[in-house]
Amino acid sequence: MSKTIAINAGSSSLKWQLYQMPEETVLAKGIIERIGLKDSIVTVKFGEEKATQTLDIADHVQAVTILLEDLTKHGIISDFSEITGVGHRVVAGGEIFKDSVVIDDQVLAQIEELSALAPLHNPANAAGIRAFKNILPEVTSVAVFDTAFHTTMPEVAYRYPIANKYYTDYQVRKYGAHGTSHYYVSREAAKLLNKPLEEVKVITAHIGNGISITAVDGGKSVDTSMGFTPLAGPMMGTRSGDIDPAIIPYLIEHDPELKDAADVINVLNKQSGILGIAEVSSDMRDVEDGLLAGEPKCTLAFNMLVNRLQKFIGQYFAVLNGADALVFTAGIGENSTLVREAVVKGLSWFGMEINPEKNVRGAEGDISTSDSRVKVLVIPTDEELVIARDVERLK
Amino acid sequence: MSKTIAINAGSSSLKWQLYQMPEETVLAKGIIERIGLKDSIVTVKFGEEKATQTLDIADHVQAVTILLEDLTKHGIISDFSEITGVGHRVVAGGEIFKDSVVIDDQVLAQIEELSALAPLHNPANAAGIRAFKNILPEVTSVAVFDTAFHTTMPEVAYRYPIANKYYTDYQVRKYGAHGTSHYYVSREAAKLLNKPLEEVKVITAHIGNGISITAVDGGKSVDTSMGFTPLAGPMMGTRSGDIDPAIIPYLIEHDPELKDAADVINVLNKQSGILGIAEVSSDMRDVEDGLLAGEPKCTLAFNMLVNRLQKFIGQYFAVLNGADALVFTAGIGENSTLVREAVVKGLSWFGMEINPEKNVRGAEGDISTSDSRVKVLVIPTDEELVIARDVERLK
Repeated sequence: MSKTIAINAGSSSLKWQLYQMPEETVLAKGIIERIGLKDSIVTVKFGEEKATQTLDIADHVQAVTILLEDLTKHGIISDFSEITGVGHRVVAGGEIFKDSVVIDDQVLAQIEELSALAPLHNPANAAGIRAFKNILPEVTSVAVFDTAFHTTMPEVAYRYPIANKYYTDYQVRKYGAHGTSHYYVSREAAKLLNKPLEEVKVITAHIGNGISITAVDGGKSVDTSMGFTPLAGPMMGTRSGDIDPAIIPYLIEHDPELKDAADVINVLNKQSGILGIAEVSSDMRDVEDGLLAGEPKCTLAFNMLVNRLQKFIGQYFAVLNGADALVFTAGIGENSTLVREAVVKGLSWFGMEINPEKNVRGAEGDISTSDSRVKVLVIPTDEELVIARDVERLK
Repeated sequence: MSKTIAINAGSSSLKWQLYQMPEETVLAKGIIERIGLKDSIVTVKFGEEKATQTLDIADHVQAVTILLEDLTKHGIISDFSEITGVGHRVVAGGEIFKDSVVIDDQVLAQIEELSALAPLHNPANAAGIRAFKNILPEVTSVAVFDTAFHTTMPEVAYRYPIANKYYTDYQVRKYGAHGTSHYYVSREAAKLLNKPLEEVKVITAHIGNGISITAVDGGKSVDTSMGFTPLAGPMMGTRSGDIDPAIIPYLIEHDPELKDAADVINVLNKQSGILGIAEVSSDMRDVEDGLLAGEPKCTLAFNMLVNRLQKFIGQYFAVLNGADALVFTAGIGENSTLVREAVVKGLSWFGMEINPEKNVRGAEGDISTSDSRVKVLVIPTDEELVIARDVERLK
């Protein structure tokens, strides 16, 4: 019996979830926001309770100290020694990390070296790792990489059609993201389909504020929509996804507010996608309200999102040369009956049909008709559980 | 009875084809290269004959003068008055030109105003138009736009998921290209399928040095792979096609040879695609030789091209929600049995199967098996004929 904590550290935040393992019971979870800023917010949830406090937290080490003190203060653990494993989400594992790994000094150094590939994320992930190492030096810590699941992609999928030197000398290739989510739901899908994982072909659509779609063949990622960075793929909450790259110098030349490529990419990451078209919000719930009220910009944003999702799904039907199931997961995928309905309705030729009685809020599992040759599944993702399981497996 | 000349003017070249209309007989064709440079090359082909001369040609007006003199010199026409129509290919028609149009001063001014959307092409097209207007002022001239066929795309397809102002204030949207080719082969496909055009859904794959794939529903373009510029889409001879846009600032930051976005786009247009990966050549014939010899870079380039073509075809099966036929056209599409075989083999789930006995060099028409639910067609494109026909229709 042991307690494992799963950590997702951002530049100014630290999300965590504490598990009783191997039972996989969630004992508590929480988030610390505004680290390094005034009035940091600490939230802890356990059982039916929720505790919040506001105080100034200078850095990740202080955040981890407060998190651990909270666990004892609220009686969730009686002593730090009950925590026997820490799992850290790390965004970029490059070509080095093909699986989760126990973190030693060399691994930590490599995570920091990979910061060029995820300049906003890997340094924050490393800060989280250091903070725990500082306070709980004896506890095994494991790095779980967003990219590891996608390291099985074949070269035709991960290489870009650009001069070879950009790959060999500059590491420019497709890495993908959301790996733990695609890993988790593809395995759950095989169970639901009642087939051996090795024989199953599924398209997993992780549709949240970030969106990535993956072609999974026999349990292995063979292609995914996120690319060198998480900007690529279908349109997302605030990200454009794929656009003609030649738009970048055109906008620099014509829009006086955009002075260089970094400016444009910043706009493509933060002010585009659903937000750029709908204008009212990047949140699909607001956009769906607008759609139902007949608001033209929200309607366009909704229809464009559906169109982009359909195109990637069609693309991965081609990559897999057919699939057993389409899986919807993450915030929008799990909750938007409208998005699921619209996406699948336009792909009836592929042999998919939704049962409207099953396509309801809170639906889980198979929502397709019994005639649907390709099954449509809703599977809530659980990236924290994958992290906790990997700690258990490797410690 | 009349003679119509179809003109494709580039910045330093002028390609032409002379037709007897309405019989659509090709009387002669030719190209003038290195206009504005030393040692311009003038080539004329008529009947079995081919004439070439080298001289200095200062500009497009002089090029047109020489072209017309050649026509009388070789006895192809006896007098300029036999030419009753001139059709000009124009690359960018923006949102203004939804069909071919007789060129008057206003049209010519609009073509020049649209140069921001095709800075290399529209000024050259306009120069060709002026040159003919100068020398044959009484002859009807018609502009045939590469983009016109794609103006039927719905908003979900032509809008990019970026802030609305980039569309409304800066005209950033998908325009597509190769319109006359997709128009021509989609109509020929309906004839081959023996179905009314209105009822036919086809995916037209124009695979030459430039590549564009179009979803054609009832004779109308509903989506196409080229975008704001011809850089977008699958990888091409020297063009990368779609890549994660975030690669651009990354390369500027890391590669000292690339100082701004325009530099990177130049590399993506001219030194990428098949050339970037195969290195030996941008010509698929060389790459296929390398493939057959087991050369790894050529093999990768070939496989990547096939992969990208398959992904776009799968995407357009989704856009059309099924299709009656896949059409191969242009240099590679018409001639590469290997590309056609590899592309279709990996899409058997879609109900396509090639008959290997029909998939030979010089094949035309249906090359699929009788069981193939989706037909696979090879249709040689004829953009010049579309131009000549539009002159005939509008003059």
